[in-house]
Amino acid sequence: ARSAAKMVSPKTRYLVFFQYCGTKYSFLFMVLSRVGLQKAAQNLKPVVPIKFHISSRTDSGVHALCNSAHLDIQRAPGKPAFQERVLISCLNRHLKPEPIRILSAYRVTDSFHARFSALSRTYIYRLLMGCTHHSEIPVFERDLCWAPTGGYLNVPAMQDAAQFLLGTHDFSTFCSPNSNAPSRSPVKTIVQADIQPSSGFLSHHYEYRGLEFWELKFKSRSFLYRQVRRMVGALVAVGQGKLAPHHIKELLEMKDTQAFPSFAMAPSSGLFLQSLLLVGLGPLHSGAFPTNAGCGAACVSGEGAQAGNEDHRL
Amino acid sequence: ARSAAKMVSPKTRYLVFFQYCGTKYSFLFMVLSRVGLQKAAQNLKPVVPIKFHISSRTDSGVHALCNSAHLDIQRAPGKPAFQERVLISCLNRHLKPEPIRILSAYRVTDSFHARFSALSRTYIYRLLMGCTHHSEIPVFERDLCWAPTGGYLNVPAMQDAAQFLLGTHDFSTFCSPNSNAPSRSPVKTIVQADIQPSSGFLSHHYEYRGLEFWELKFKSRSFLYRQVRRMVGALVAVGQGKLAPHHIKELLEMKDTQAFPSFAMAPSSGLFLQSLLLVGLGPLHSGAFPTNAGCGAACVSGEGAQAGNEDHRL
Repeated sequence: ARSAAKMVSPKTRYLVFFQYCGTKYSFLFMVLSRVGLQKAAQNLKPVVPIKFHISSRTDSGVHALCNSAHLDIQRAPGKPAFQERVLISCLNRHLKPEPIRILSAYRVTDSFHARFSALSRTYIYRLLMGCTHHSEIPVFERDLCWAPTGGYLNVPAMQDAAQFLLGTHDFSTFCSPNSNAPSRSPVKTIVQADIQPSSGFLSHHYEYRGLEFWELKFKSRSFLYRQVRRMVGALVAVGQGKLAPHHIKELLEMKDTQAFPSFAMAPSSGLFLQSLLLVGLGPLHSGAFPTNAGCGAACVSGEGAQAGNEDHRL
Repeated sequence: ARSAAKMVSPKTRYLVFFQYCGTKYSFLFMVLSRVGLQKAAQNLKPVVPIKFHISSRTDSGVHALCNSAHLDIQRAPGKPAFQERVLISCLNRHLKPEPIRILSAYRVTDSFHARFSALSRTYIYRLLMGCTHHSEIPVFERDLCWAPTGGYLNVPAMQDAAQFLLGTHDFSTFCSPNSNAPSRSPVKTIVQADIQPSSGFLSHHYEYRGLEFWELKFKSRSFLYRQVRRMVGALVAVGQGKLAPHHIKELLEMKDTQAFPSFAMAPSSGLFLQSLLLVGLGPLHSGAFPTNAGCGAACVSGEGAQAGNEDHRL
């Protein structure tokens, strides 16, 4: 008879980076549990069902240029651990019909946790100015930006207002009520709140239409539920002249989720998780899959590597 | 009794510019006849069914940043002609679920014809280099570019090869067989064949992945069936080293549709009709809908206005 020791195979923990278009999904949960990653992972025929622990759970309709997750794979006895490139191609093959893609994968130690290792999250919000009606949004930009009504926005006023969001504040006014979220501290530190001109898909071919793309960028260790969408909506209200820049400061000081003006919520369509900074990984470069390896390197910068005391990569 | 003269209402001819994402449609015909423009136009309650005469019919999966069409609207007796802005908003309202948008509309004389007035068509083909596998195409670029296998392409060789396509040639080798198309002269004059670096959707946020976007641009009075896709495919084969630049010249000289190498057909996903040059319209500016009027002005340049002997606008 085979020994009991032979029947136990070790589990291998992986960190994966992935991107997705959120339009189709009512919640990232849908991607994970039914139509996306989780289902694709079952094709790896693990001994124990595979669970993805996501660094940043995004809301309905929100997109991600780069998100990350860790997962454990326990194979049948005697089977070697999957190579990273095999894991990537197997997951992507089964994800093919879905608007979600694995960018890269790395073996990590069992103590690495994708969510708790995230030192910062950076979100991009895409605004389209110059539309008098939503039908003027280019067909290739649908569900990928927000075109607030009322034409052009007062960008300098928005930039003044954004300064009030920088630093450490109680963001209760900028947190949507959410019974599912555990009660956490409403105090967050915003280290970046920028407004920059940007471009649209092939927009250099229709500059004559007078449309302008702008990007709002926010960076923090973490954000409250719908905090970015409330911050963007309030800044747009400033750009429209519905609020003055100093109203942002007053909203913060109210520390009351009910105090947020209901007209000022930005839709999910313009929001993209751009990158994550993970602690304790060091630069992620691998000769095995050079075209994917860059993602980790960009998401996990020197800042993250220095902050960690140990290296979780294997 | 009402006089017979009162029962006859005059028809009004309009020129409309529109854009669409071709991925969803098996043929633009589908858009026109069943799910798109034609159906939307019936909501205008015309006396006679409305027919769209398209400037450039595009093939399955091909996109358009700007295409144009003319249509006649005959309303019930006593009803005034639709204002352009009313026509735009009515069509767009009914097109809302479809990835197609009316950009602008102009009243024109009854002798104006959208197809016969087109002095030139400009197509853009988007290439993505640096992918070793199609799963590396960003999710936001799916069906909007072509990522040929084999990594980076030899762009200088492609640029050399493109020179052979410029000027007046018999393009029989670059025309796909099509029993539906009337037999027309295979002699065409290519006035532009450029290869330029470009950018992808939000690609400034993932430059680290080593992906490169390029655009091939072709301009001619008209093109043969699938001519642009055959030209692009042949240039990519040169970039991959499968063909030498001088092979393009030899393919042209064969003047035989069967001589085209079957491996070298570019897919429709990367192809965009970028603009049209219409004759006899002059600059199209209107204070009534300033954000849309620009499209016509860009598509109908001074060249077109000079070439025409009459002004068809009303």
